[in-house]
Amino acid sequence: GHVSVVILGGTGDLARKYLWQGFFELYINQVSSGHSFSFYGGGLSPANKSTPVLFQILKALNCPKDVSKERCAILKEQFLRVSKYKQLTTLEDYQDLSKSIQKHLQQEGMVEAGRLFYLSVPAFAYAEIADRINSSCRPPNGAWLRVVLEKPFGHDFKSAQVLATQLGTSLKDEEMYRIDHYLGKQVVANILQFRVQNKKHLDPMWNKYFLERVEIVLKETLDVKRIAFYDQYGVIRDVLQNHLTEVMTLLTMRLPQNLSNSQEALTNKLNIFTSLLPLSKNQAVIGQYQSYQREVQQELNKTKDHVSLTPTFAVLAHIDESQYEDVPILMISGKQLDERVGYARVLFKDNVFCLQNQNSVHCKPKQIIFYFGHGNLNYPAILVSKNLFKPSVIDSDWKEVTEHKDKNVTVLGLPISDYYVQTPKVQKESYTELISRIFAGQQNCFVSTENLLASWDFWTPLLTSITNTFPRIYPGGAANNDMLDILLKGRDLSYINEVVLIGDNQMGGQTANHFQVMQGKFRNDEMVSGWTEELIEKLASDIEEAAEKAILEGGVFHLALSGGASPLALFHRLALHHFAFPWRDTHIWMVDERCVPLNEPESNFYSLHDNLLQHVKMPYYNIHPMPVQLNQRLCVEEDKGTWLYEEEIKKFVNASRFHFVLLGVGYDGHIASLFPGVKPEHHGKNLVVFTESPVKPHQRMSLTFNAINQAQKVGILIIGKYKHEAVIQMSRVKEETAQWPVTWVKPDNGNVLWYIDYEALLG
Amino acid sequence: GHVSVVILGGTGDLARKYLWQGFFELYINQVSSGHSFSFYGGGLSPANKSTPVLFQILKALNCPKDVSKERCAILKEQFLRVSKYKQLTTLEDYQDLSKSIQKHLQQEGMVEAGRLFYLSVPAFAYAEIADRINSSCRPPNGAWLRVVLEKPFGHDFKSAQVLATQLGTSLKDEEMYRIDHYLGKQVVANILQFRVQNKKHLDPMWNKYFLERVEIVLKETLDVKRIAFYDQYGVIRDVLQNHLTEVMTLLTMRLPQNLSNSQEALTNKLNIFTSLLPLSKNQAVIGQYQSYQREVQQELNKTKDHVSLTPTFAVLAHIDESQYEDVPILMISGKQLDERVGYARVLFKDNVFCLQNQNSVHCKPKQIIFYFGHGNLNYPAILVSKNLFKPSVIDSDWKEVTEHKDKNVTVLGLPISDYYVQTPKVQKESYTELISRIFAGQQNCFVSTENLLASWDFWTPLLTSITNTFPRIYPGGAANNDMLDILLKGRDLSYINEVVLIGDNQMGGQTANHFQVMQGKFRNDEMVSGWTEELIEKLASDIEEAAEKAILEGGVFHLALSGGASPLALFHRLALHHFAFPWRDTHIWMVDERCVPLNEPESNFYSLHDNLLQHVKMPYYNIHPMPVQLNQRLCVEEDKGTWLYEEEIKKFVNASRFHFVLLGVGYDGHIASLFPGVKPEHHGKNLVVFTESPVKPHQRMSLTFNAINQAQKVGILIIGKYKHEAVIQMSRVKEETAQWPVTWVKPDNGNVLWYIDYEALLG
Repeated sequence: GHVSVVILGGTGDLARKYLWQGFFELYINQVSSGHSFSFYGGGLSPANKSTPVLFQILKALNCPKDVSKERCAILKEQFLRVSKYKQLTTLEDYQDLSKSIQKHLQQEGMVEAGRLFYLSVPAFAYAEIADRINSSCRPPNGAWLRVVLEKPFGHDFKSAQVLATQLGTSLKDEEMYRIDHYLGKQVVANILQFRVQNKKHLDPMWNKYFLERVEIVLKETLDVKRIAFYDQYGVIRDVLQNHLTEVMTLLTMRLPQNLSNSQEALTNKLNIFTSLLPLSKNQAVIGQYQSYQREVQQELNKTKDHVSLTPTFAVLAHIDESQYEDVPILMISGKQLDERVGYARVLFKDNVFCLQNQNSVHCKPKQIIFYFGHGNLNYPAILVSKNLFKPSVIDSDWKEVTEHKDKNVTVLGLPISDYYVQTPKVQKESYTELISRIFAGQQNCFVSTENLLASWDFWTPLLTSITNTFPRIYPGGAANNDMLDILLKGRDLSYINEVVLIGDNQMGGQTANHFQVMQGKFRNDEMVSGWTEELIEKLASDIEEAAEKAILEGGVFHLALSGGASPLALFHRLALHHFAFPWRDTHIWMVDERCVPLNEPESNFYSLHDNLLQHVKMPYYNIHPMPVQLNQRLCVEEDKGTWLYEEEIKKFVNASRFHFVLLGVGYDGHIASLFPGVKPEHHGKNLVVFTESPVKPHQRMSLTFNAINQAQKVGILIIGKYKHEAVIQMSRVKEETAQWPVTWVKPDNGNVLWYIDYEALLG
Repeated sequence: GHVSVVILGGTGDLARKYLWQGFFELYINQVSSGHSFSFYGGGLSPANKSTPVLFQILKALNCPKDVSKERCAILKEQFLRVSKYKQLTTLEDYQDLSKSIQKHLQQEGMVEAGRLFYLSVPAFAYAEIADRINSSCRPPNGAWLRVVLEKPFGHDFKSAQVLATQLGTSLKDEEMYRIDHYLGKQVVANILQFRVQNKKHLDPMWNKYFLERVEIVLKETLDVKRIAFYDQYGVIRDVLQNHLTEVMTLLTMRLPQNLSNSQEALTNKLNIFTSLLPLSKNQAVIGQYQSYQREVQQELNKTKDHVSLTPTFAVLAHIDESQYEDVPILMISGKQLDERVGYARVLFKDNVFCLQNQNSVHCKPKQIIFYFGHGNLNYPAILVSKNLFKPSVIDSDWKEVTEHKDKNVTVLGLPISDYYVQTPKVQKESYTELISRIFAGQQNCFVSTENLLASWDFWTPLLTSITNTFPRIYPGGAANNDMLDILLKGRDLSYINEVVLIGDNQMGGQTANHFQVMQGKFRNDEMVSGWTEELIEKLASDIEEAAEKAILEGGVFHLALSGGASPLALFHRLALHHFAFPWRDTHIWMVDERCVPLNEPESNFYSLHDNLLQHVKMPYYNIHPMPVQLNQRLCVEEDKGTWLYEEEIKKFVNASRFHFVLLGVGYDGHIASLFPGVKPEHHGKNLVVFTESPVKPHQRMSLTFNAINQAQKVGILIIGKYKHEAVIQMSRVKEETAQWPVTWVKPDNGNVLWYIDYEALLG
């Protein structure tokens, strides 16, 4: 059948450099197998202006090496004949295009196979173009429509979702082909194939016991181009969110049973995203080359004091599956570095103990390198260090390299002769490769909507958290030396060298300790205040301290935790950074619970489990969810749930005296599920009661003031400026009052400690 | 006061080489501070024979360097005067000794401070000697008794316990001083001190995120001495169970708040033992130097075909605390190696990503080495690689070494100049050090009974499991080359080089696959049989395969497990070796349960938790213990526990059809808690019922035949020769019969697979 190809932005940079060449090669490959084509270079300019430009581009096209000069000349002439420029501005232009395609087909008596639109235009134009294609340029039934999109696909989760929704109104999911040109690189495109073919060797090694870490690196020597665009995006949006993330998923996803099953591959890929641990700013370092500010000022006509925080360099990810637990995955990219190179390095642990001969080959580093190109080696290749295993060659398009032009070349610490090396027989341009796959309808070489959103979902919180972080300034090139070297600190990372940018005397204010929090008084009790992150750090380490003390004294630590949003950051902190926390001897209790099943997201326990418990190792018996569900029903008085929890507390907790109770406070001053109007005497000597919440779900189970006030320590955590009004009110209320339940928190024989962040305290 | 010291075996090797010298130095140090002493060399020979021998030993004693020649001569003469030989064979001899001490004290008008007995005699004599000391040689009230014991303290858990009980009838715990001379080595004795003093630097690094591994190594160049003894013991009992284990605990135990608090230190030390993962033979490699067999044959008058399996070389341990999770701890020792050296090396992870300059100092190995002595360095020292931190010097008895005699010396891969080095100002003999600590009553430098038993408890299962393993034979010395290099494979280890000792044609039998199991039929169903360990490996990997299949198909795997002893090995195998097992998507159900609280050791769930669940990461909601305890009481019909579990199964398990049910079979043919006499029709359509067991505890909750027969796969595991009779019976019973409940296991639409080990199958 006949295929019409429309390249929007057909005389632009990308089209000139890669797309026309790619489509020309597609033409060469497909024309002999009976397909017929017409090509349209689309653009906003009138035809008389752009036709000569397009002609220049087409004239410069080359045939692949295996095509003879004579045949090439003929093919090129044919290609020129079926290609033309078409102005595509108004809706009428699209209608007109559709008509002319149909007319052409009728004239030649051909059947239409499909239409391929390649959108090489700014992303803001996507929605409108998609709408026009949909409304006036769809092929007739039976023929396919494929619309190819180039990044950016949004700049965060929300914008990506908006764009996806917009496009979704015009195009079906299977009609969209989102290009990530990294997926067309021959080495990247064959990562899964390599993993499948060497499964026998890799399976036993592809886990936390053998993997030291994974590095996915894209180093560039150049400056930023297109600053106006780049300054909005920065390195994370430009290459980490897409290219390096794609490589990361290919390296870590569960192998599909069948490589050609796109659905299975996509499911496995999405699974990796769901098991990525959330990123915080401690998992990233950012940098910016020195001359960047000047370039921005010049290019964007900014004044000298304009400061751009756009990073040009950056990240550490962790997959929370037992297979990859605590294996660091580094994703790194930067401009103006010492060399241009791209690779993914899978470094294995030093797992050999050399008893006598330290120089033995098996004591050397063990690694597999997916070398995308450039760098020392200067060709794409997959390298396996010889002390690992001899890999199978991918397929007949690949070959083993046994003779090395430069025998002294080293690749990532090992001489080339220490590797088994394989490389594609013919190097192909990424775009050429991808264009042939679009034509073949191979969707799993492209980024699906789900995949895209999952990736943004992962990256967006980090982008938000580093918005105001000042990047490290580096000189560029070899002069960077070890200034950008990175130190992995557990699940965090930092630059290895501290660089003092500002002298102490230039620092404003004072810091109380390394947490940078201040101590004070609130309602006559101790108060700690600081920026949210530092405050949470302090709270987490106070809890760990209390745990260690309690365990030293009595062998066990009883911690009661609240629901709600405030403690989530604490849970993350404890799960990800307190790796010596004595969980084995800690019991977790609930301060209150909603009357919903424990495994539903509304449950306080669910969020505690999701954010803390599932990340740490704690005996099953030490976990004490509130029994809101008994006899397959929720919070029914006669099922005696409150009595059961009270009995459990009495059985496990010495004198029912928790070591640490963590509370939040609502806008209305409620704590636990004790709402305004309630007084301690309402609950007598009970430790646990049912209560009614003014908001849904109404039914709750809660510790009483009586239970809370028996604790050794009560921490009250208040975060966010929306709580500021409540904080002011609380500071004014002197007496206990039923209007402010929090005022009844007065441990008989313990302390209250307030943790209030600056926003809640200062508004 | 006056102190009497009695060295039993006073003219033996150890006394000659170390003890008298140690006591002489004690005498020199203490005599000036007002203590008076008498020393007795005790032995079985009559005094006329041994007195000259003792005299020869005493004449050869040396003073420490800081004592002048003149003073030395005087001190030595005094020492000779207060020392004499005393035959100690019969009870009367001991009575006689006691009397003469008392008489001497009366004559001199002195008060008795204490009596110190040093038992440098074969261990079999300990109990009797202790008894005699207790019955006739105790000092009067107010004076202390200290009895010093030399290893061996038993050869496994049981014998150590017997010996401890015997000694316990004569001596109080605080009267026993068990010597481990490693604890007297200056570097070992200061490990805790070093950790305390550098806490600030070490705390953030002393965990799984930073530790690559720990190596505790004792290499010797010599042959085995005292073959008659050694051949009974081997290297594990000789040095791993004691010396290297002590070092391991010092490196990993939680630091006591107060170093001089022995009780806290002991508690923390014992905690490490409770968190050690059990050792199986996959966690050890053993070796034997080539000439050992000949030496044994000659020395012990054995024939040429006598084979000793005594290892001279060996182990990998893991501590199951989140702090040290999956940090390998290697303990290694051997005779006839290339050098004599002892050290503990704490190797940190390669945690720096060098972006541009690979040769930067922070990319070099990072390690702390506790160097006990000998080797390249040839003096005891603590070395910290300079890219870590600059450690504090232990105390005023230690000094920093900044000038190195041999600047080119390298220690474990790094040149000496890359380390901060500290060493004791004066080198002291371990025995001299320990003798002064016995005198000072410092018990935490000695091995307590609890500590000893905990250590044997850890080592005994390994010793049992390798009883019949043939060690790798190595030539000895430099010729070993890399023959003994060790490969860490997850939580297992092996020699790195396969050595083919026997050709294929010499191998008896055939192996079905790498599990070395055979497949067959039993009761018309598939059967797998093999040696226990291989059988369990096969079962574990069958379950993992079923899990992967189920999750691929439906996203979830439902596994029902039985109690009893048989599955324990399976639980271990799954916990320790199946690190890619998809626990996140697995639900665990119980086949049956005893009516006891879940956190009591009798509970099936308890043993499942202890042996499997606490070692893996599984969402809380995926764990389904049977609700035998409801409303604070056990298995009461009206609490509707069986109904609740049935509802839970129906809610989670598609069509109540478990993917895999694992059963054991009792001697009486019972499965689950379905005992002889029961028939499927008794339980109607119920999935869960209460039953009565003929043995205690009588009350049970159990899945019914109905529930079991709905499963996709039912595995029946039978292990041990005590089950042989039952296996024979089962193979004969053709029809379903109430006498053999197992005969009713016939899945409606699934398979039964029998896993029967050789002992159960063949008797």
